[in-house]
Amino acid sequence: MNEAAITLDGWYCLHDFRTMDWASWKMVSSDEREEATKELLNFLEKWGKAHDAKQGSHAIYSILGQKADFMIMLLRPTMEELNEIENAFNKTKFAEYTIPSYSYVSVVELSNYMAGKDSNPEENPHIQARLKPALPESKYVCFYPMNKKREGNDNWYMLSMDERREMMRSHGLIGRGYAGKVKQIITGSVGFDDWEWGVTLFSDDVLQFKKLVYEMRFDEVSARFGEFGSFFVGTLLTKNKIPQFLAV
Amino acid sequence: MNEAAITLDGWYCLHDFRTMDWASWKMVSSDEREEATKELLNFLEKWGKAHDAKQGSHAIYSILGQKADFMIMLLRPTMEELNEIENAFNKTKFAEYTIPSYSYVSVVELSNYMAGKDSNPEENPHIQARLKPALPESKYVCFYPMNKKREGNDNWYMLSMDERREMMRSHGLIGRGYAGKVKQIITGSVGFDDWEWGVTLFSDDVLQFKKLVYEMRFDEVSARFGEFGSFFVGTLLTKNKIPQFLAV
Amino acid sequence: MNEAAITLDGWYCLHDFRTMDWASWKMVSSDEREEATKELLNFLEKWGKAHDAKQGSHAIYSILGQKADFMIMLLRPTMEELNEIENAFNKTKFAEYTIPSYSYVSVVELSNYMAGKDSNPEENPHIQARLKPALPESKYVCFYPMNKKREGNDNWYMLSMDERREMMRSHGLIGRGYAGKVKQIITGSVGFDDWEWGVTLFSDDVLQFKKLVYEMRFDEVSARFGEFGSFFVGTLLTKNKIPQFLAV
Amino acid sequence: MNEAAITLDGWYCLHDFRTMDWASWKMVSSDEREEATKELLNFLEKWGKAHDAKQGSHAIYSILGQKADFMIMLLRPTMEELNEIENAFNKTKFAEYTIPSYSYVSVVELSNYMAGKDSNPEENPHIQARLKPALPESKYVCFYPMNKKREGNDNWYMLSMDERREMMRSHGLIGRGYAGKVKQIITGSVGFDDWEWGVTLFSDDVLQFKKLVYEMRFDEVSARFGEFGSFFVGTLLTKNKIPQFLAV
Amino acid sequence: MNEAAITLDGWYCLHDFRTMDWASWKMVSSDEREEATKELLNFLEKWGKAHDAKQGSHAIYSILGQKADFMIMLLRPTMEELNEIENAFNKTKFAEYTIPSYSYVSVVELSNYMAGKDSNPEENPHIQARLKPALPESKYVCFYPMNKKREGNDNWYMLSMDERREMMRSHGLIGRGYAGKVKQIITGSVGFDDWEWGVTLFSDDVLQFKKLVYEMRFDEVSARFGEFGSFFVGTLLTKNKIPQFLAV
Repeated sequence: MNEAAITLDGWYCLHDFRTMDWASWKMVSSDEREEATKELLNFLEKWGKAHDAKQGSHAIYSILGQKADFMIMLLRPTMEELNEIENAFNKTKFAEYTIPSYSYVSVVELSNYMAGKDSNPEENPHIQARLKPALPESKYVCFYPMNKKREGNDNWYMLSMDERREMMRSHGLIGRGYAGKVKQIITGSVGFDDWEWGVTLFSDDVLQFKKLVYEMRFDEVSARFGEFGSFFVGTLLTKNKIPQFLAV
Repeated sequence: MNEAAITLDGWYCLHDFRTMDWASWKMVSSDEREEATKELLNFLEKWGKAHDAKQGSHAIYSILGQKADFMIMLLRPTMEELNEIENAFNKTKFAEYTIPSYSYVSVVELSNYMAGKDSNPEENPHIQARLKPALPESKYVCFYPMNKKREGNDNWYMLSMDERREMMRSHGLIGRGYAGKVKQIITGSVGFDDWEWGVTLFSDDVLQFKKLVYEMRFDEVSARFGEFGSFFVGTLLTKNKIPQFLAV
Repeated sequence: MNEAAITLDGWYCLHDFRTMDWASWKMVSSDEREEATKELLNFLEKWGKAHDAKQGSHAIYSILGQKADFMIMLLRPTMEELNEIENAFNKTKFAEYTIPSYSYVSVVELSNYMAGKDSNPEENPHIQARLKPALPESKYVCFYPMNKKREGNDNWYMLSMDERREMMRSHGLIGRGYAGKVKQIITGSVGFDDWEWGVTLFSDDVLQFKKLVYEMRFDEVSARFGEFGSFFVGTLLTKNKIPQFLAV
Repeated sequence: MNEAAITLDGWYCLHDFRTMDWASWKMVSSDEREEATKELLNFLEKWGKAHDAKQGSHAIYSILGQKADFMIMLLRPTMEELNEIENAFNKTKFAEYTIPSYSYVSVVELSNYMAGKDSNPEENPHIQARLKPALPESKYVCFYPMNKKREGNDNWYMLSMDERREMMRSHGLIGRGYAGKVKQIITGSVGFDDWEWGVTLFSDDVLQFKKLVYEMRFDEVSARFGEFGSFFVGTLLTKNKIPQFLAV
Repeated sequence: MNEAAITLDGWYCLHDFRTMDWASWKMVSSDEREEATKELLNFLEKWGKAHDAKQGSHAIYSILGQKADFMIMLLRPTMEELNEIENAFNKTKFAEYTIPSYSYVSVVELSNYMAGKDSNPEENPHIQARLKPALPESKYVCFYPMNKKREGNDNWYMLSMDERREMMRSHGLIGRGYAGKVKQIITGSVGFDDWEWGVTLFSDDVLQFKKLVYEMRFDEVSARFGEFGSFFVGTLLTKNKIPQFLAV
């Protein structure tokens, strides 16, 4: 039997992509728009408190192109909390002016290919910080889901642990070359959503996303074994920018 | 000619995923909402009686992400009963506020790879309990449909019975490692729906879904032969929680 | 050059799957619903006369799951007649309350792999009965479209006539094992619709569909060469049951 | 470097498939319907004049099944003309009652596999007639788009010119066997639409489409290299039949 | 480790495809249509100023077939600007009468396969002009996204730098054969959108698109490694032609 990789799992994660129904949004009175905007800002305030209490994190980005108008990325200690927040959000007046376009359910993950084995991860503050990350306020975000391929001779899950570890090490070296330029959060979604992983990248220089993903594509892990879903790219919507984003 | 696996088949199964049309739901009077909610609760009461009479079982879960808002899983001795319930449900006022998003038709199944051959399954109460299961009230659910691959050298249906049995045995061992943590219901859908099997997992710890499915993915049965559809994950909606779930 | 199989072709066939727009159906007056129901019943009466005159056949089934609410299967001597009936049906008031969900265009077909070559099929009443079949009033129906694969070494159309004939013979033996339990109508759709064949199965025991399709999947014809589309399963709607099916 | 096939290109071609919105069509007054029908007939009259002046050709067919209610096939000397006609048509009142369902952009093409090389095609009236064809008023039409495969060992574009020419020759022989029964118009769409070619077949006997396409499927060009899109089949709508087609 | 190709990146690019909602457009008063048209023309005027200041470029084309009615192609020095323009555009009254049908996010790119390595590209005016191109007012446009394949033995990213460079050189020679006939803008979208590259072709002779893409398809780079998305083709909408395009 093949040896499975063991993962460390942290906060649960919901990526929620939506498109604004601008025609309806413009049709209602400015009072109603103000009220709906306030609902969204109230959520953000509550989420900010969870962030301050280290009980979660969140980010909002305006997405480029027709795939979505904005993305909310939400981290919480339990999936139940994510579900409650999602249901509450869906019942708001604000949500009536949005059209769901894509979502992704996952959990922040560190694979044991990289992690040291000797230390107790529960007591390692560095590991804990990566499993329960505070999302950065970077200018740009990039999100895409991915699989490891299982086709003919290119079957990741039929490789030995040693082969996989060696390839992941070389893969990780590329990522490390972007330290300080791109922050990368890997979330696992096997059993939770349609792909095996979600990758969320943050950077102040959007071109670094292209450089990083392109360089990795020549690495054997991606070249032979990477299968990629849709790519989403967007610019930061701070709480202050939201009223302007919604102004019509 | 290749020897087909023989299966034991139990209750018929309908997974029904729906999204709430919250905007319409909020627009009608609270009286109408109450009436519609009562319709749903009446169905649940009737289903509860079928459960008590061991004539079926059911479960409702709130689904995370945009794929659906909730899933009803329904088991009945005949497919005709499922069809009647579905048609009746679709005619309710409650159903007017829901948008169908996915469904799955199958039958609870035990494959003879695992089952003992000597005993008469009709008289084996353990087997009968698995074929006509009472769905647990676990906190979390996971559902996904799957196929066994038929591509080039990775063609499950061209393997000999012995090869398949040996691989399924090793596969089953992984599942058994999660005994007490994850309850697994396999339903067969060859001839009934677009994939060959449906897998429904129940657990009080949602992370166990990821661990189980990920560990299995390294097992040859999944690594070489598993093809997976969409994954749905959700949290339990007991009858008591439904009014709150629908409150706006 | 490869020798093509010659087929005998009979009546043209339209499978028409639709979903009821129950919300609109309930919104109109009971008089309008009665009138629309009568339109459907009038069509059925006309189709019944065609059946009696051996000028066609038809069947209506309530489909399980969200893929469709019902399916009409219609056989006629010419494709022009099918087109006329379809256009007339689409203009009815009843059709306004239905949402098209899937359709399939084909012609009843017997392949010469099975048929005897010496007799004149035009004069063989057994063959004529199979080419112009009276659809049975079985309790359950199963429909799926399929292709023969053309991928790498698994290319059905590159096999010799002898190889194909031998495999089809063994395949046919499985089908014959279900004689009396499952009635099978094969319709060819090369040049007419997106798959090469449609398979419609009729049985009073829905489980026989699963057993038959599953057993065949281990046969080389299906294991190596079968590609399958969506599966639809449903229960019989006799003319008498239709008012109840439509009652709200 | 591989030698590309050179093609002769004639008139540009738009296939436009649409579904009638019968519910809306019935809702408006008969005056409005008459006006809208007249718009369509006016277009047909103008197109008829272009046909008479040998400046194009057109055909309308009622399509069987739910893929579309009718198809307009339009040939013109320039793509700009097609674009202008399309935009004008989309602005009519008639178009308001139609729902676009599929379209295909291509250009009538003769490949040099078949064409003689010595003569000047510009002066060859036979070739010019094929490049600027008058569409026949056959009772039935069949349309499908297709590619030549590029997968592993089945890569059409990696074959030598001689191999391709030899296979196309044998392929052409099958087509010639249907001379007088099926008229075939090949349009190229590399760089114009999602598939490499469109195939439009005309016949008074719809069964010939199935026989031709099925026989060709056993030919190596199709068996190993053919990739097919959706198939559409329909019956002729002459100008005289259109009022009846639209009558409600 | 495999050596990645290094790219030079220029202006960011948004392709935005939309369909007109002609029914709604005709329903409103001519005053409202005029106002909405003016909004679009104001955008074009502003974009014209950016063009004059060499701070970007843009083009509008009427698209043939049902995929879209028109495409806006927009180039800007930063992705943030594209996002701002897109959000502002979506809030216009004009946008209310359009239905988004496709979009593509990318950045103008020159690969180092072709570019000379010795000169400093920042100081090379020829390279700068290609990275920050003024879009031509050609009569026709063609757009399609594409990938380099990673399947079995046809895995572009597992080739050595030398193999890739040699193939790209031969590929480039074909393109150069169309100099003066087709202008080609390659935009990279790895990490930005669902395909790896976007290709936008401009020509006054639409047939050149077909000739160029078809000839390239026989080249090993395309034959073995090219994967193509949807193709869009259209005719130029100059600022002067827009009122006529929108006139109803």
